[in-house]
Amino acid sequence: MARVATGESVIARVVRVLDAFGPDERVLRVSEIAARSGLHVATASRLVAELVAHGLLARDDHGGVRVGLRMWELSSRASPTAFLRDAAMPVLEEVHAAVGQHVQLGVLDGTEVLFLERLTAPGAVVNYTRIAGRLSLVASSSGLVLLAHAPARVRDAVAAGPFERFTAASIDSAERLRRVLADVRRDGHVICPGYIHPDATGVAVPVWDPGRQVVAAALGAVVPNTAGVSASVVPVLSAAARGITRRLASADPGRTRPLTD
Amino acid sequence: MARVATGESVIARVVRVLDAFGPDERVLRVSEIAARSGLHVATASRLVAELVAHGLLARDDHGGVRVGLRMWELSSRASPTAFLRDAAMPVLEEVHAAVGQHVQLGVLDGTEVLFLERLTAPGAVVNYTRIAGRLSLVASSSGLVLLAHAPARVRDAVAAGPFERFTAASIDSAERLRRVLADVRRDGHVICPGYIHPDATGVAVPVWDPGRQVVAAALGAVVPNTAGVSASVVPVLSAAARGITRRLASADPGRTRPLTD
Repeated sequence: MARVATGESVIARVVRVLDAFGPDERVLRVSEIAARSGLHVATASRLVAELVAHGLLARDDHGGVRVGLRMWELSSRASPTAFLRDAAMPVLEEVHAAVGQHVQLGVLDGTEVLFLERLTAPGAVVNYTRIAGRLSLVASSSGLVLLAHAPARVRDAVAAGPFERFTAASIDSAERLRRVLADVRRDGHVICPGYIHPDATGVAVPVWDPGRQVVAAALGAVVPNTAGVSASVVPVLSAAARGITRRLASADPGRTRPLTD
Repeated sequence: MARVATGESVIARVVRVLDAFGPDERVLRVSEIAARSGLHVATASRLVAELVAHGLLARDDHGGVRVGLRMWELSSRASPTAFLRDAAMPVLEEVHAAVGQHVQLGVLDGTEVLFLERLTAPGAVVNYTRIAGRLSLVASSSGLVLLAHAPARVRDAVAAGPFERFTAASIDSAERLRRVLADVRRDGHVICPGYIHPDATGVAVPVWDPGRQVVAAALGAVVPNTAGVSASVVPVLSAAARGITRRLASADPGRTRPLTD
């Protein structure tokens, strides 16, 4: 692999450039990309020029740079999440029609939950998830479901803290976390009133990978923090999660590979 | 930019590696990546190893390689299409509930239509679109809508042929194409019976960019090739397209940048 002066590879620098972009930073100037990626402006400028030439980045008419359609296409058409998403989407739509608030599908990635899909309604309660956004496993209902069924090494790493707290209700100790995770495994769902925002309750259930002893994803909803609402959502989510598992099984009965990394 | 022996940059080779993957080639062996990308196995192997180290590719337990979650995340969270998709998604769901077949959103990219989103129903009629898939502008209803409102240079390039034909009904001459495009501009929709498959009719309408004289996307449906069905879909799609434009306007009233490249 060709290397630049600092010993860092071109690919490592490309990742730093791409990492500068985010949901709130969809358009950046080259100087901003340099600052956010820690690269010299001249280096950032050269990399951006070549990424633009290949369509992985695109320039607008105002000196701005953003992720290109080609980058989205290369990653989406062979996405490791496409199979899961295809199976889940019709079910998510039905849940969304029934629940009428936020409905989302998340997978475990490292020590965070990565949201693959989110359906939302105008006027729905506050929600901090985004498509391709991440949340701490401890703070979010989807994260707690994934963590409850994660390998022991992931659970140990998360239990060692620190605990990202959003509100006074957020989980703040390893002991409380262990109790909650045991409850999730016993009950098959989790209800998190006010963990992330005082007005919102997260509810989530596991989506089991067919024929495997592992959880493929968490199916979650964010509903108003009103008595009775979250409990009524649990059976809807549980039935939907079983529906996704059935669709996964029938879509690819001979599959031997895990759904995500 | 550091260059390898042939004079091709690392980024160019990375793009060739990523390009080897597709909807039907989600998992490839290194030897297959080398063959599909035209790289030596040793070169492909080195590039794959580094892309895996950065999470842009991932290995499974069976010697297979695929696109990594990190690649999907980097491109999705700042996707140029995210803004359009967010505005369109709730409307697409409503159309899908009403039409009950395939509903899709496509944008112009080069001389093809690139599909950003597709909702589908079990047992729906045949459909060749995929998320992040492409179709010829001439063959598909969404493509014809985008082409009708495309810059003259795109229309001229496409009219020069060749014409990709799927069935005997497909458009096969510049003269017929020009007539169809004039009809699309006059009628505000297109109906394509059997252009891609004898049993399916594509119907599509333009989604106008608010406050601009350009079409941001095509909203399309694929319905059974049965008398009356496609015509009944047109008013549903037209109302939905206006709804997407309204949502685009209210989501970002001060926007000055185009929605896609």
